[in-house]
Amino acid sequence: MTKALQRRVPVPPLAAEPDPVPVLLYGAGAIGAGVARAIRRSRGLRLVAAVDADPAKSGLDLGSLLGEEPWGVVVRADLGDVAGARVAVHTTGSFLPDIKAQVEALVGAGLHVVSSTEELAWPWLRHPELSAELDAVCRQAACTVVGTGVNPGFVMDVLPLVATHAVRDVRRVVIRRRVDTALRRRNLQVKTGAGMTVSAFGSEMAAGRMGHIGLAESLAMVAAGLGWPVGDIHEELAPIVSEAGTRSTEIEVPAGHVAGLRQTMEARTGDGRTVVLELVMELAGGGDADEVELESDPPVRLRVEGGVSGDKATVATLVNTVGRVLEAPRGLRSALDLPLPRVTG
Amino acid sequence: MTKALQRRVPVPPLAAEPDPVPVLLYGAGAIGAGVARAIRRSRGLRLVAAVDADPAKSGLDLGSLLGEEPWGVVVRADLGDVAGARVAVHTTGSFLPDIKAQVEALVGAGLHVVSSTEELAWPWLRHPELSAELDAVCRQAACTVVGTGVNPGFVMDVLPLVATHAVRDVRRVVIRRRVDTALRRRNLQVKTGAGMTVSAFGSEMAAGRMGHIGLAESLAMVAAGLGWPVGDIHEELAPIVSEAGTRSTEIEVPAGHVAGLRQTMEARTGDGRTVVLELVMELAGGGDADEVELESDPPVRLRVEGGVSGDKATVATLVNTVGRVLEAPRGLRSALDLPLPRVTG
Repeated sequence: MTKALQRRVPVPPLAAEPDPVPVLLYGAGAIGAGVARAIRRSRGLRLVAAVDADPAKSGLDLGSLLGEEPWGVVVRADLGDVAGARVAVHTTGSFLPDIKAQVEALVGAGLHVVSSTEELAWPWLRHPELSAELDAVCRQAACTVVGTGVNPGFVMDVLPLVATHAVRDVRRVVIRRRVDTALRRRNLQVKTGAGMTVSAFGSEMAAGRMGHIGLAESLAMVAAGLGWPVGDIHEELAPIVSEAGTRSTEIEVPAGHVAGLRQTMEARTGDGRTVVLELVMELAGGGDADEVELESDPPVRLRVEGGVSGDKATVATLVNTVGRVLEAPRGLRSALDLPLPRVTG
Repeated sequence: MTKALQRRVPVPPLAAEPDPVPVLLYGAGAIGAGVARAIRRSRGLRLVAAVDADPAKSGLDLGSLLGEEPWGVVVRADLGDVAGARVAVHTTGSFLPDIKAQVEALVGAGLHVVSSTEELAWPWLRHPELSAELDAVCRQAACTVVGTGVNPGFVMDVLPLVATHAVRDVRRVVIRRRVDTALRRRNLQVKTGAGMTVSAFGSEMAAGRMGHIGLAESLAMVAAGLGWPVGDIHEELAPIVSEAGTRSTEIEVPAGHVAGLRQTMEARTGDGRTVVLELVMELAGGGDADEVELESDPPVRLRVEGGVSGDKATVATLVNTVGRVLEAPRGLRSALDLPLPRVTG
């Protein structure tokens, strides 16, 4: 047998680490708390201020509030002095009209903003005018605002677009995400209809209160990233009914009741190039999975085995985007404009 | 059964398509020919000039040379007039010292450069001084130079880094690529030792002539992208011997001869965080596969089923990067600095 050859390649040192980036937390709910903990553990970021509108939290130390040692960061109800922060991580709502004034105040204070607001992942879809206003405020202040998260913001838009980097002639993009809500918070099980009667689900659905927020934003981002002019997005939403009944630790689904939902969105160009997003969120649905299929040259089939899990991954995308937003062009931006998405140390 | 809810979401039109980007082809070998064909089929790019040092090609129409209709693009031996090109796609060699003068001439003519040169994917690893010189030339001319490809440039560096965007606390990154060379050009089968005796392989290996160029560059890019200060890269290279013998359409591997090679690279930080790259290139090795495993919070396991195939994907990454390099910061850059990698229409 020929012996293996062993060699060493010296790696030149990295540029000296810059000072940690001072971050302001805006919104101290479940996701905000996760963000705060992650920033505390990071080398490259430093938590310097926290804002939450809840009067019960105001004046308390954020660490103590989260059941840890005091951190010396007192939660305030109003923005006020930003304590030298350069970037705000904003986690207060899903819809742009509800949070636009908050983001503008942050930008007015000279902060870049990384937001979990689902509609901000691709704000030009539902709010072209508000987006133009917010962009003008950002440019005036030489700040960058970007929405991110795991979905929208990563598994059903950014990751599939990155998969297209190694192909040409894309004709069809199919993105599938399966979430087993039994592995998640009770809140998500409830929001996806687990345990509801079929008729109650139907009423809620008809009232526009069911379905994942941000799926259309993902599709619009994918189409724009491909440079595809698409017409309307066609959406279909339906309950998944458990014939035999099922349960999680938190919720009982009787036989014939709803276990979750299936939501699909599709859009196509005039010459038939198509993007399809399918999201299944089901209690005891057999585990998580994420998948991308490209009909292209060459074809690509990418799978994330076990999926990209929810809240931890959402927290991660927010914290990791802080490292990217500093180097991004100014204005209201999207993941398409930022440097290569990756972990921030 | 509750009927599914159907809705339409109108998508605002994209910004008007810009004029196609004029591109100069520098190097008309196998990859360059693929690039030229892809540009001819694209909406967003336009081939305006072609340069190749081979005197046998000089003066000929590139389309005719590739067995197609004349394209009106005559191959020249020297750069000369760049015919209004803004970006050059450069595909002439693997090593920075061999091609630095070519790239500097392109930058001197005011062109951004996207290059297949493997060492340019992370030039700071082996050539810190040449990199600093080239960077100065780029900044002087307000141009951007970046190396890309499928490997290095995508499957073993960019894609694994993107997978870290949804996690925190990365402790270990393992990247595996398996290439079945029977599915590729004869040239790759030969380069990976298929059909050689074990002792001939050993001699070539000892002379530094075996192994994939660019694997160490991928590792260095991953470490830098993670912000990890790593020490030396430890490389191990060994032949894969076919006990029973095997064959492709092109090459016969007798029993006991070499079918391919296994190359692994590993580097770690002082506190034990580790990056491992494993590349197996084997004739009739059972098909292609690409895989990334992250030990992180949450953990991630990503697979590209059937792998990201070679020459077509290399061509695609080059052509697709033309769309990104225009929006990148100026200077000698890497994939870390460019906007989200994705197909260019």
